[in-house]
Amino acid sequence: MDTSIPILAANYTSMYHTHALQDRIADGLADLGIPEHPANLYDPVRYMLQIGGKRIRPLLTLMAADLFSITDMWRAVPAALAVELFHNFSLVHDDIMDHAPLRRGHRTVHEKWDSNVGILSGDNLLIMAYAQLAKCPTDCLPAILDTFNTMAAQVCEGQQLDMDFERATAVSIDEYLRMIRLKTSVLLGAALKMGALLAGATDTGAQLIYDFGVDVGIAFQLQDDILDVYADPKQFGKQRGGDILANKKTYLLLKALEMADTATRSKLDGWLADHSEPSEKINRVTAIYDALGIRAEVETAKQRYVERAYTALDAIPVDISRKAPLRELAHALLSRGQ
Amino acid sequence: MDTSIPILAANYTSMYHTHALQDRIADGLADLGIPEHPANLYDPVRYMLQIGGKRIRPLLTLMAADLFSITDMWRAVPAALAVELFHNFSLVHDDIMDHAPLRRGHRTVHEKWDSNVGILSGDNLLIMAYAQLAKCPTDCLPAILDTFNTMAAQVCEGQQLDMDFERATAVSIDEYLRMIRLKTSVLLGAALKMGALLAGATDTGAQLIYDFGVDVGIAFQLQDDILDVYADPKQFGKQRGGDILANKKTYLLLKALEMADTATRSKLDGWLADHSEPSEKINRVTAIYDALGIRAEVETAKQRYVERAYTALDAIPVDISRKAPLRELAHALLSRGQ
Repeated sequence: MDTSIPILAANYTSMYHTHALQDRIADGLADLGIPEHPANLYDPVRYMLQIGGKRIRPLLTLMAADLFSITDMWRAVPAALAVELFHNFSLVHDDIMDHAPLRRGHRTVHEKWDSNVGILSGDNLLIMAYAQLAKCPTDCLPAILDTFNTMAAQVCEGQQLDMDFERATAVSIDEYLRMIRLKTSVLLGAALKMGALLAGATDTGAQLIYDFGVDVGIAFQLQDDILDVYADPKQFGKQRGGDILANKKTYLLLKALEMADTATRSKLDGWLADHSEPSEKINRVTAIYDALGIRAEVETAKQRYVERAYTALDAIPVDISRKAPLRELAHALLSRGQ
Repeated sequence: MDTSIPILAANYTSMYHTHALQDRIADGLADLGIPEHPANLYDPVRYMLQIGGKRIRPLLTLMAADLFSITDMWRAVPAALAVELFHNFSLVHDDIMDHAPLRRGHRTVHEKWDSNVGILSGDNLLIMAYAQLAKCPTDCLPAILDTFNTMAAQVCEGQQLDMDFERATAVSIDEYLRMIRLKTSVLLGAALKMGALLAGATDTGAQLIYDFGVDVGIAFQLQDDILDVYADPKQFGKQRGGDILANKKTYLLLKALEMADTATRSKLDGWLADHSEPSEKINRVTAIYDALGIRAEVETAKQRYVERAYTALDAIPVDISRKAPLRELAHALLSRGQ
């Protein structure tokens, strides 16, 4: 029998495998104790949590807790679950507002039930998120709540701006970047920051991991805009050109509108007003993007955020070896479809 | 100059005038610092808070804090504001679900804007409620969050049951009482309990004031059911018989269905299916209620809850003089239209 004890530096805390953290999240979600009745309130909650998703956001919370050497990973699990519950709340309500029929390849809650069920079960998911936050260690609770509440209000603001932009005649690139930052990126930042706070990170450390998350989020969204037009549909799993057909004001379209000369602008406006030939519309708008060199423009913008993200990660005052899992996850997220 | 100091018992803490507490709530609401942009998110929030309401629920929080001799009333103001913000969140979302055109005599948010604006600004009101809770003193925060989260989930359950009952063929009196308890009464109980917790009340004291609030709430709702049919419209300010026209499953209708013999039941069912003559429907259903003695039945049920409420209040281990303001408020609420 080997009784030797591995010799470690005094300040070294061993890290978790990502799979072990994912298991904690899966166990935590399975263990929420969602009531059976009223069925029309809680069945949709269960449904949303069962149709899955990759659970990236709660994983970020636990990975950040691990980065800052949390002494007891159980301290961070409720916050991670709160992040996932909040994400599902926002999906249920956004899908109603956007009239989306499908989510993760399944019928959305308001389609499978109705809008009222979507509103109320969404509300309940948000309340369930706060019920998890209430389980966070008391010493961290005010900071956790502040981080979460600020994020939650910003996500609502982002969703409102996204809806406002649909009806707006002109949206600037800066306004667009602000919108995606609020609607999707601050949640990644807050998920990470909450893990850091629970691990007792310094203010500087918590801010840096937040910045890393926000910048990864913006880069990810810009990549999503690119993939809509330039991805291999077999790899990406979505129909190419959906944003073009919907006249969605993506970074690509806004940049094209900004760069186009009068003749090109007039052609582009023509295609925006035309809904007669879907595949021709996609091809013609893509051709305009190609002629203007839009893809390279967006790649450059994306790369700027990727670099800012890694600069923030590099600056975090912990051993470089602890940063490897987050760096790998970010790399995987930001290399989709390539 | 009179320099005499009033001689008080050592353990006596002077009480606040109700008006002084109401002023704190008004100041707190005026001071929320609601952002200007995005206007479609925050204008409806401001609108809901400006069209008023009597602010009974936040007043209950401060009155309970006063009952238990809170040392610094400012400790309780954020929780009181959270209660009012939560109440407004639930009104905005319920009004969408119930297709209500008016609230407090003004157009509802989803009517004045649209459903999407109602969903998202409602979400924001809920998040704003939690932002206030985060300001509660840290030593009370876990208990406050538990009380609030339990209440919030129950209010959603109550709203779901209310919607389920609209489509249900048979609803028992017990199911109805459970629904109104969840939908409207636990908020009064929780509002009071939060004030008690912030004042350092014992578990017993906090539970008793909670029970008082819940029973006052149920009695109030039963009174509301009575007033729909039997109030003087000039005093009540609502059209008489609205519940009858909507076939609303109130305590009156459920009791009538329970008590009616076969012939009466058949007449009642006939009127429920008839929408041709509004005023005749109201008069005929009222006549059935009168013949069955329904009003007295509901008054008796109401009185049972009123008595239970005062029994709980009486049992609270503080000086009887401190209970006078809450007793007066409950009396005023439970004597409307009489």
